[in-house]
Amino acid sequence: MVPTDANFMGDVFGGVILAEVDRAAYVTARRHARQNCVTASFDRVDFLRPVHVGDVVDFDARLTYVGRSSMEVLVEVRAEDLSGGEPRLVGTAYVTMVAVGSDRRPSAVPPLTPETEDERRRFEEGKRRMQERRSSRPNALAHHEIHDP
Amino acid sequence: MVPTDANFMGDVFGGVILAEVDRAAYVTARRHARQNCVTASFDRVDFLRPVHVGDVVDFDARLTYVGRSSMEVLVEVRAEDLSGGEPRLVGTAYVTMVAVGSDRRPSAVPPLTPETEDERRRFEEGKRRMQERRSSRPNALAHHEIHDP
Amino acid sequence: MVPTDANFMGDVFGGVILAEVDRAAYVTARRHARQNCVTASFDRVDFLRPVHVGDVVDFDARLTYVGRSSMEVLVEVRAEDLSGGEPRLVGTAYVTMVAVGSDRRPSAVPPLTPETEDERRRFEEGKRRMQERRSSRPNALAHHEIHDP
Amino acid sequence: MVPTDANFMGDVFGGVILAEVDRAAYVTARRHARQNCVTASFDRVDFLRPVHVGDVVDFDARLTYVGRSSMEVLVEVRAEDLSGGEPRLVGTAYVTMVAVGSDRRPSAVPPLTPETEDERRRFEEGKRRMQERRSSRPNALAHHEIHDP
Amino acid sequence: MVPTDANFMGDVFGGVILAEVDRAAYVTARRHARQNCVTASFDRVDFLRPVHVGDVVDFDARLTYVGRSSMEVLVEVRAEDLSGGEPRLVGTAYVTMVAVGSDRRPSAVPPLTPETEDERRRFEEGKRRMQERRSSRPNALAHHEIHDP
Amino acid sequence: MVPTDANFMGDVFGGVILAEVDRAAYVTARRHARQNCVTASFDRVDFLRPVHVGDVVDFDARLTYVGRSSMEVLVEVRAEDLSGGEPRLVGTAYVTMVAVGSDRRPSAVPPLTPETEDERRRFEEGKRRMQERRSSRPNALAHHEIHDP
Repeated sequence: MVPTDANFMGDVFGGVILAEVDRAAYVTARRHARQNCVTASFDRVDFLRPVHVGDVVDFDARLTYVGRSSMEVLVEVRAEDLSGGEPRLVGTAYVTMVAVGSDRRPSAVPPLTPETEDERRRFEEGKRRMQERRSSRPNALAHHEIHDP
Repeated sequence: MVPTDANFMGDVFGGVILAEVDRAAYVTARRHARQNCVTASFDRVDFLRPVHVGDVVDFDARLTYVGRSSMEVLVEVRAEDLSGGEPRLVGTAYVTMVAVGSDRRPSAVPPLTPETEDERRRFEEGKRRMQERRSSRPNALAHHEIHDP
Repeated sequence: MVPTDANFMGDVFGGVILAEVDRAAYVTARRHARQNCVTASFDRVDFLRPVHVGDVVDFDARLTYVGRSSMEVLVEVRAEDLSGGEPRLVGTAYVTMVAVGSDRRPSAVPPLTPETEDERRRFEEGKRRMQERRSSRPNALAHHEIHDP
Repeated sequence: MVPTDANFMGDVFGGVILAEVDRAAYVTARRHARQNCVTASFDRVDFLRPVHVGDVVDFDARLTYVGRSSMEVLVEVRAEDLSGGEPRLVGTAYVTMVAVGSDRRPSAVPPLTPETEDERRRFEEGKRRMQERRSSRPNALAHHEIHDP
Repeated sequence: MVPTDANFMGDVFGGVILAEVDRAAYVTARRHARQNCVTASFDRVDFLRPVHVGDVVDFDARLTYVGRSSMEVLVEVRAEDLSGGEPRLVGTAYVTMVAVGSDRRPSAVPPLTPETEDERRRFEEGKRRMQERRSSRPNALAHHEIHDP
Repeated sequence: MVPTDANFMGDVFGGVILAEVDRAAYVTARRHARQNCVTASFDRVDFLRPVHVGDVVDFDARLTYVGRSSMEVLVEVRAEDLSGGEPRLVGTAYVTMVAVGSDRRPSAVPPLTPETEDERRRFEEGKRRMQERRSSRPNALAHHEIHDP
């Protein structure tokens, strides 16, 4: 994290963190989908601890749920002060990415097959979150090209 | 929005939009608080329509609720294709900013006095959202320097 | 305005301000022309007050005069110190933009119809300035693809 | 010149050129003054030919006139298409820089001693331009910390 | 890797890769040294395969040898085309970093204790390379503040 | 050199210098080749003196040897502290660039005809270095599209 990412006390802007979260989610989703992806939504993100200029920040992203064309990616953000100490959890984010074809409409992606007990639990939770997101998405979306039946 | 903000189909990354949302919220909160501010949380953000490289994007930010040291800022994002057409609503975000003193702890800010009927309604809604955020914030926050009694 | 825009005393480079002035003029001209535009000239710009890192800078651009394919845009630059105080006028710039077609030659744009007394006065002044610019433009321009009869 | 500096036809924004002009003028003035400098004004700049993404652009800056604390720098801008052809003159700019002390007020600089006939002529012309600038500077300047008696 | 990092055929500049290699080496050395570090040298780097815009590039850095105040870091660079295929080795680099104290002179760092057979072999090879670098470093270095007896 | 290029003591990252070295080598090679070029290798680079934020850095690049499709470029890097003092040699780098055609394979370039005694000596030395580089290049190169018989 470099000086231009920060305010005048050296705290990194939360939005700069989210921009990197999105990039990590994009790479993870695109690698699975093997086609172009766009961000459909960010769930609420709480910033648990401040990040400072000079910290090394790690974005650990993994797929938790995959629908027909949408994918939920969990990104855990950890910051490490290089002067000492362990990486600290800074925040977690669930990002929904949608694969889109060259016609810019949602496009089917390979299924995700959870294998461990833990992965299966996360998959079911992700499925539930996805359903909640859809039912609470603003109306404007009804007329929108990105939806995922 | 310039080429490096976008994927290979010219869609601007959602995270780039959020980084600007945060900057707009920061300016709005800092102008009210007259002291340094940090981002405490972003509520869920749905991207209702894609933004393309070359669009002019407008971030309209205003204070909706102000507590002792935390402020809720509503940011409405609109994108305009300069080749024609009206600006379109792309998404809305509620950002919670906290004023912090030179000791990096939450610091009191001037109150917000809603004047119109509409402002009063938004204020009450913002107060309710703030209470919900606090009750559902991850446990890690309990040990965290940023809280706002 | 962020640190990389500034010298070592925290004064923002004048050229960084002009780059943003140009961008504001481009958006204003392109929105009117509904086609690509290039910068033909900047009139003299005096920097009336310094801008500092951390100031929020506002670029207020409007069309003052429109010829066949060239447009004059007035950009007023104001800087606001977020720690307090009103925005201060930092400088004003007249930028001449020319609409260009896909053959990269000047291309006609819709006329501008000034409506208020003030707009009509500005329009006449802009017309005069445009004539002066043309008569004093360096000879090299005679051989140049961008001219506007 | 890289893609983000350009519009969608690959023409580099004039303002991006001016930002580099200012940087070249700053280095030239600062090297002479051995102290911090700020930009006081840009004379009118005509863009004689377009610059394209991928061109190598050369900024040739030299001092033409030096007063007590202000310096006039002439910057000639040339663009070279690396696929072939000579560098072409794109524009010229006169930039006025003022040396400022740690109190942020104008500070005296070493004199410039023109040596060749050509340098003496440029010096006299620069002196005349400096006087014209002062007499036509907006009133706001009267109250401004940067002036150079 | 984004557009501004590349030439006009979409090949990423080798120097952009090296800038990231240096950053990875810096983080690795600084984490070990717990103090500021500067780059003393890059060994020869061959670019084995081109990297393209849109590839995800991974920089895997580890300490191979540690002297009194200098550290050798091996960085392996792999590029992955997100449309499919495994990450490919693009190049490897040995970077020598030196820990420097607040007086800007070399400062002792904790020793490195190789544990596996492989680590011990790499350590001995690193030691040999470090000796060769010192004996062949340009004379100018003799007068230089950064040396490591 | 601006703040984001530097660590926290104001020393510019060596990798940032190398990125600019590469750009200078690219421009020099491309101007000679009149076609696209990619970086094949960097010889060892020793950083003889630190570069600080605010220094003006000069990259002096020239062709020393030209083979069928590969070119050796010598880049000398000098840093100047604008507060006073002469530019100091910071490091030198030999960069090997290869011209590539639209099929992305090495493509013949015009020969270089050394004229002075000094140029002839450099040419012969460059030829020897090129042969050494080829014989010691990693095996991976055997399967690589960029080679220069």
